[in-house]
Amino acid sequence: MTMWGGCFSAPTDKAMRRFNDSIAFDQRLFAVDVRGSIAWASALQRAGLLTTPEHDAIVAGLEKVAQEFAAGTFATAAGDEDIHTAVERRLGELAGEVAGKLHTGRSRNDQVATDMRLYMLETTASLETALLSVQSAVIDRAGQHLDVLMPGYTHMQPAQPVLFAHWLLSYFWKLQRDRERLVDVRRRTSVCPLGAGALAGTPFAIDRAALARELGFAVVSPNSIDAVADRDYLVEFLSWAALLQTHLSALAEDLVIWSTREFGFVQLDERYSTGSSLMPQKRNPDSMELLRGKSGRMAGHLMALLTVLKGLPSGYNKDLQEDKEGTFDAIDTLLVELAVAEGVVRTLRVNAAAMEGALDDAMLSTDIADYLVLKGIPFRTAHGLVGQVVKRAEALGVTLRALPIAEYRAVHAAFGEDVYQVIDPRRSVSARTAEGGTAPSAVRAQIEVARSCMGLTS
Amino acid sequence: MTMWGGCFSAPTDKAMRRFNDSIAFDQRLFAVDVRGSIAWASALQRAGLLTTPEHDAIVAGLEKVAQEFAAGTFATAAGDEDIHTAVERRLGELAGEVAGKLHTGRSRNDQVATDMRLYMLETTASLETALLSVQSAVIDRAGQHLDVLMPGYTHMQPAQPVLFAHWLLSYFWKLQRDRERLVDVRRRTSVCPLGAGALAGTPFAIDRAALARELGFAVVSPNSIDAVADRDYLVEFLSWAALLQTHLSALAEDLVIWSTREFGFVQLDERYSTGSSLMPQKRNPDSMELLRGKSGRMAGHLMALLTVLKGLPSGYNKDLQEDKEGTFDAIDTLLVELAVAEGVVRTLRVNAAAMEGALDDAMLSTDIADYLVLKGIPFRTAHGLVGQVVKRAEALGVTLRALPIAEYRAVHAAFGEDVYQVIDPRRSVSARTAEGGTAPSAVRAQIEVARSCMGLTS
Amino acid sequence: MTMWGGCFSAPTDKAMRRFNDSIAFDQRLFAVDVRGSIAWASALQRAGLLTTPEHDAIVAGLEKVAQEFAAGTFATAAGDEDIHTAVERRLGELAGEVAGKLHTGRSRNDQVATDMRLYMLETTASLETALLSVQSAVIDRAGQHLDVLMPGYTHMQPAQPVLFAHWLLSYFWKLQRDRERLVDVRRRTSVCPLGAGALAGTPFAIDRAALARELGFAVVSPNSIDAVADRDYLVEFLSWAALLQTHLSALAEDLVIWSTREFGFVQLDERYSTGSSLMPQKRNPDSMELLRGKSGRMAGHLMALLTVLKGLPSGYNKDLQEDKEGTFDAIDTLLVELAVAEGVVRTLRVNAAAMEGALDDAMLSTDIADYLVLKGIPFRTAHGLVGQVVKRAEALGVTLRALPIAEYRAVHAAFGEDVYQVIDPRRSVSARTAEGGTAPSAVRAQIEVARSCMGLTS
Amino acid sequence: MTMWGGCFSAPTDKAMRRFNDSIAFDQRLFAVDVRGSIAWASALQRAGLLTTPEHDAIVAGLEKVAQEFAAGTFATAAGDEDIHTAVERRLGELAGEVAGKLHTGRSRNDQVATDMRLYMLETTASLETALLSVQSAVIDRAGQHLDVLMPGYTHMQPAQPVLFAHWLLSYFWKLQRDRERLVDVRRRTSVCPLGAGALAGTPFAIDRAALARELGFAVVSPNSIDAVADRDYLVEFLSWAALLQTHLSALAEDLVIWSTREFGFVQLDERYSTGSSLMPQKRNPDSMELLRGKSGRMAGHLMALLTVLKGLPSGYNKDLQEDKEGTFDAIDTLLVELAVAEGVVRTLRVNAAAMEGALDDAMLSTDIADYLVLKGIPFRTAHGLVGQVVKRAEALGVTLRALPIAEYRAVHAAFGEDVYQVIDPRRSVSARTAEGGTAPSAVRAQIEVARSCMGLTS
Repeated sequence: MTMWGGCFSAPTDKAMRRFNDSIAFDQRLFAVDVRGSIAWASALQRAGLLTTPEHDAIVAGLEKVAQEFAAGTFATAAGDEDIHTAVERRLGELAGEVAGKLHTGRSRNDQVATDMRLYMLETTASLETALLSVQSAVIDRAGQHLDVLMPGYTHMQPAQPVLFAHWLLSYFWKLQRDRERLVDVRRRTSVCPLGAGALAGTPFAIDRAALARELGFAVVSPNSIDAVADRDYLVEFLSWAALLQTHLSALAEDLVIWSTREFGFVQLDERYSTGSSLMPQKRNPDSMELLRGKSGRMAGHLMALLTVLKGLPSGYNKDLQEDKEGTFDAIDTLLVELAVAEGVVRTLRVNAAAMEGALDDAMLSTDIADYLVLKGIPFRTAHGLVGQVVKRAEALGVTLRALPIAEYRAVHAAFGEDVYQVIDPRRSVSARTAEGGTAPSAVRAQIEVARSCMGLTS
Repeated sequence: MTMWGGCFSAPTDKAMRRFNDSIAFDQRLFAVDVRGSIAWASALQRAGLLTTPEHDAIVAGLEKVAQEFAAGTFATAAGDEDIHTAVERRLGELAGEVAGKLHTGRSRNDQVATDMRLYMLETTASLETALLSVQSAVIDRAGQHLDVLMPGYTHMQPAQPVLFAHWLLSYFWKLQRDRERLVDVRRRTSVCPLGAGALAGTPFAIDRAALARELGFAVVSPNSIDAVADRDYLVEFLSWAALLQTHLSALAEDLVIWSTREFGFVQLDERYSTGSSLMPQKRNPDSMELLRGKSGRMAGHLMALLTVLKGLPSGYNKDLQEDKEGTFDAIDTLLVELAVAEGVVRTLRVNAAAMEGALDDAMLSTDIADYLVLKGIPFRTAHGLVGQVVKRAEALGVTLRALPIAEYRAVHAAFGEDVYQVIDPRRSVSARTAEGGTAPSAVRAQIEVARSCMGLTS
Repeated sequence: MTMWGGCFSAPTDKAMRRFNDSIAFDQRLFAVDVRGSIAWASALQRAGLLTTPEHDAIVAGLEKVAQEFAAGTFATAAGDEDIHTAVERRLGELAGEVAGKLHTGRSRNDQVATDMRLYMLETTASLETALLSVQSAVIDRAGQHLDVLMPGYTHMQPAQPVLFAHWLLSYFWKLQRDRERLVDVRRRTSVCPLGAGALAGTPFAIDRAALARELGFAVVSPNSIDAVADRDYLVEFLSWAALLQTHLSALAEDLVIWSTREFGFVQLDERYSTGSSLMPQKRNPDSMELLRGKSGRMAGHLMALLTVLKGLPSGYNKDLQEDKEGTFDAIDTLLVELAVAEGVVRTLRVNAAAMEGALDDAMLSTDIADYLVLKGIPFRTAHGLVGQVVKRAEALGVTLRALPIAEYRAVHAAFGEDVYQVIDPRRSVSARTAEGGTAPSAVRAQIEVARSCMGLTS
Repeated sequence: MTMWGGCFSAPTDKAMRRFNDSIAFDQRLFAVDVRGSIAWASALQRAGLLTTPEHDAIVAGLEKVAQEFAAGTFATAAGDEDIHTAVERRLGELAGEVAGKLHTGRSRNDQVATDMRLYMLETTASLETALLSVQSAVIDRAGQHLDVLMPGYTHMQPAQPVLFAHWLLSYFWKLQRDRERLVDVRRRTSVCPLGAGALAGTPFAIDRAALARELGFAVVSPNSIDAVADRDYLVEFLSWAALLQTHLSALAEDLVIWSTREFGFVQLDERYSTGSSLMPQKRNPDSMELLRGKSGRMAGHLMALLTVLKGLPSGYNKDLQEDKEGTFDAIDTLLVELAVAEGVVRTLRVNAAAMEGALDDAMLSTDIADYLVLKGIPFRTAHGLVGQVVKRAEALGVTLRALPIAEYRAVHAAFGEDVYQVIDPRRSVSARTAEGGTAPSAVRAQIEVARSCMGLTS
């Protein structure tokens, strides 16, 4: 028997029950549902709607229900369409008719809205911790490889030499933005809808501010119609997840490509690789392929919720029940992904010889153009001249370092013997000392800033 | 111990296992996996790679595994990362070392690709049946209400009178297109990848055409690299599902709006409604709200797979494992949705009085313009003249039927007393006899065509 | 001749040019491109790379280019693949070879990244203003109709009476969150990538902090590899736009439904309606239908950018050029949408009689249950009792107000004559005085808070 | 003055006009609009609603309008909200009041629906041709390189040797499915809605079948309500485009990776590459990066239309106007993309030496396992044994070919000297002769099938 069945004469259709019931996926809300109800019982007591014995009986019953759930001994009944019904039904069994007083002035609408926000505040805290762990792994590994050079790529073509640590730290900042954004998401999650009733507010003397404080919310929702139907914070969360996911997919793509035999820059630890059933020599970067592939579901969950909300009229509509499964899957998936990403970064084997072996003189052509600039030649002109130098070297089949000075001077008289000093990847890297640049000094400074962003001191 | 662990010295990380393993969701493939393996054993026997006793031992073992699964007695083991590994492991336990011969010339890549196609052929057949049931309900209800008029809306404003049956049949054709599209999806699903190996094909004398026939596939995949990574048929399926879902959401929107107290055109049966925990008088059209809201996940699943496939290089990549969960959820969801939709249509209470009460004279202004056209006035001119008539009626606060003939004639002399005969919704409806129109004769013909589309005879 | 053609011997393919060139859509960046270049010229001068006359010549040339653009007299040339090339080409024509010095130490990558951020800072300021205008319209109209009651809906079924102003204000808070989120988006947009070069940083003594200040950025990008490829702020912007759009679509849906003839609660002003070419009596709420329909493109633009970024390796990749068209369309669309939304709200005709006529006694059943609660009956019990009352009234075909007291008392002895006082929508509304409730006093307080959120004083 | 303004007293708001008008993007429909109108005029004549002189005057006027458009001399007027209004207005100017007769029995709703379908039939024919050109390029290049071996990859790790031609042909089949799907899309596009009126059908004696034939449609729409609002064919088209786009993005990803310096398998022709403004040595595969990046907009357009349609009630709603811009952009983009893809394939430089240099012995471990299978060892056992062999070779730092036979025999006595014959990539490839395999004979047969799919004979 459902909570609302009083006026109905026909039982719900079986397919409809399967369609409508949410207990299969909203069970995980049991703890926050109980927390919310305990706070509501206190509010009712403060408002004179529950006596102290009534309040205590209800709270004791709720705590018992929570224990049963946590212990795995809770048994759902046929009419338990959702976790809130299940808790209410069991409370009634444990506490008797007084249990019915708990629902005074409260609707399923504000109750569920409150539960979900409490749950999101808890799980986003876990996600923040997981993010910090990945950032920490990034900083640690960057600090260990400060002397390793590698090609920096644009269009996947080698462009200029950079430090491996500089590349790795580029992910620190993506994750740092994710962490900052998560703070914003949490700020807008921390709004207490309890007391909004079904949509019109509560007619009883509930102190909503005290209730919000007791539940750890920052503020109270300012409009009851908005309060019961607002799912903005979940859209924000899923947008956040989808954007974090693009960062994870980029890291994955870099590592998948760099662990090809042709690049050979890195090797994933066996703990994060798999083999092949048919080809025993294979070391497949499955962890990174899955990290990349999970982008699909994250974009999908976001799209799903936006679609649900599109054109939905005011007030609570049952469509909103579709807010949960995607959100829960996003949370579960990200927690595993972040653990895997941290593990991969921490255990990654870095093949410095391969990275440095991939550097070549042509990557220093910008440095040569800059050399001409310092001799007074406008950059665009210098750019064209270096293009001619590169073509000559290609035509002669030699590197820029091996190209005779006469060939340089044939292109422009400003070239002198000192040009060969410029053709040195370490010099190129060391020159980029401006903030955010790839010079070792700048990267060390970057690490310090990164550490302070994490609340660490050196 | 996984199938591929032979060359590895470190165990897989725990989070990585959770990340990588698919048995939680691919278990449902057990039956098709066994079917595929039985067919492969026959192919190996035909190719001389299995003796008859070997073949028979393997097939007997596979059938035993399938029985265990079907009976719910199958126990997964720690190393069972996916259903294919689980079946193979269990077969080894039951049949001994000969079981290892089953995997001759076959890779996990072509095996999984085959299983999934077999599964999709089975489930899309169920979906086709479910679609037919909804279409059948639509035809039945249309036939029962051939005399009920209602306003036809554009921009949700009453536009012209139509038959209720005509409106209902508009959904028949949407579903008919869905059914036709499903035939196309199934045609491109019915391609056998078995024999493609990991990606290069099989070096053994496998008769792929015979194998395909045995498994019920229409054709053999023409390129082994394409065969193992092709997920087009799943994108097609999810596109199909997303489009079908827009039809279901439109039906839902119509019924939600029409079951408002303000419209009152229909009432959902209690079996497909729910009540309110706080407001006992409510009859909420939850079934239709969920039908509308499920659009989110369907668009999301499609977006997810498109995102997974974007920019994926050739050959099998682990990202492709992400093809399953969304697809399975789409199938399960649609089967319930179609059952609910059928039930709702079959049990819908139609309030003919409310529908006909919502008709008004202004909806016949097109008919009045057409009346002028038949008197030789160009339509655009007639259109402007009727606009003036409507304004006059509004100014006088009367309906068009009550507007005195003098007022009509003040607008244009072509108006005669016969104009009042035109202001009749039944006449308006009956006039639209051209194919696809709303005249009862045309709607009856439409039902006949619809029935023949379903293979029914009258 | 393109900027990079120096080493190439074959001209670009014609289809490829059409594919590659972006000047058709990035022209609108001309002003920020010039601003960025002027700041860069100053930075080069401060670093000793430009003399004062060189700097002045370049700046004068750039200002001339900007004037030509603003005046519409700028003529693009065949090789102008993008706006940056066009400006550079024209500057060269105006200022001679010294123009080539402007590009010292700067890459197209950091230049374009800077331009786009400057542009977004400008346009998001306009969007903030537009949002404020809609919020202002909402507050004004809410204040004008504080005495109008209407049904509050859940599941589109009448649930409880609320103030029309309370409903309207529910949109204030959605837009308020949008405005707060926009502040967050702008904070993360205000990061200066200039000085990051192609990806490795700049080797010249550029004072990046001074440069950022000059351009109005809050901070400098901390990692050059991240700086040139980071498009997070655009994903954030499009997520913001998609979420704002769900609010606009909900408002649209409410108004489309409420302006049906069947509801008749509101009428859109003619300035925001259209007519029908065939049915002169129609008043179509096209503005609101389009507002609802624009949700499509906004979700689409977001999905598009997420798809582009999925699995993109580190560093600049040409795929990133796809960040612009969707973003620009989102900006243009939202500016028009917000102007239309404001106009619609300001000019909306409110039919108070229709709204109040739609209230009925059954909407007060919660109030009757609350009445029993105050007599000591647990709410769940009361809920069931009221359900019985409603059924009796339905069976007798009377309203709750007309149901004889004997009938009430037959359900439960706690019912007294005072129950009829409870069956009054104004009393119901007035009782909900807790913060965020629909009581007139609470709504007036809500308006005050809303005004202070906008920086207004009463 | 708009067509529907007759009953309105206030002019449309300026922002609203910008919001509402579609002529900026629907101009391209001018030719099909005129075609549709000419056919309608004939239908009216056949129905006795136009005299022959009236018909001829209208048709002559329409042809004049089309000529003006084609010649670029057509001038839009202030009230031209869409192309249909513009054509009608101009026809009125050219033909006088008789022009008003053209709109007899036709609504903007069925007119626009017809125009769009006609347009899609034309443009999808162009897309089919463009697809064929890419397929033809693929076959040609495959035929030219039948002797080139390369590593086949799974998880981007070298797996087994394959023919370059086999890899290239894998794209033929993806495009072949795209072409087959396009036939299905076109079949469901070829439905004539003309005669459906605003939504109820036409009351005049229009021969809809003749009308459809005249316009080249296969069938007549069977339900007028469905006819005016059905956008399924556009969802199908955009789903088709999004799926084709995943194929293009995969090709792009392969070529971007293979043209890295580290792989070096291919080089894009200069006509499809660009250079760098700062690094003159760069050859950037921009064409392929854009091909990959365009996936974003294609998925976006699909999601946009699905979002528009979600929850839209029956009948025409203005939201449907949002069907056009994304569709048009998808068409334009794909036509350029396919031209670029064809050009890239035709001009690609194939570095056979690099491809074959990337083959190594470990890729033949499957062949060694198969060798053991033929000696009677179960595949799974053989698989484990080869894993041991690979580990020994790795430990000794030698290739499998250089591993002494004693080492093989230490793993299993079944190994004989003939194992070295197996370690030969050409032999491995040649063995895979089953249909769809990579053996040269199978690939030649594949090309023949491919050619016949294109209607070519050898």
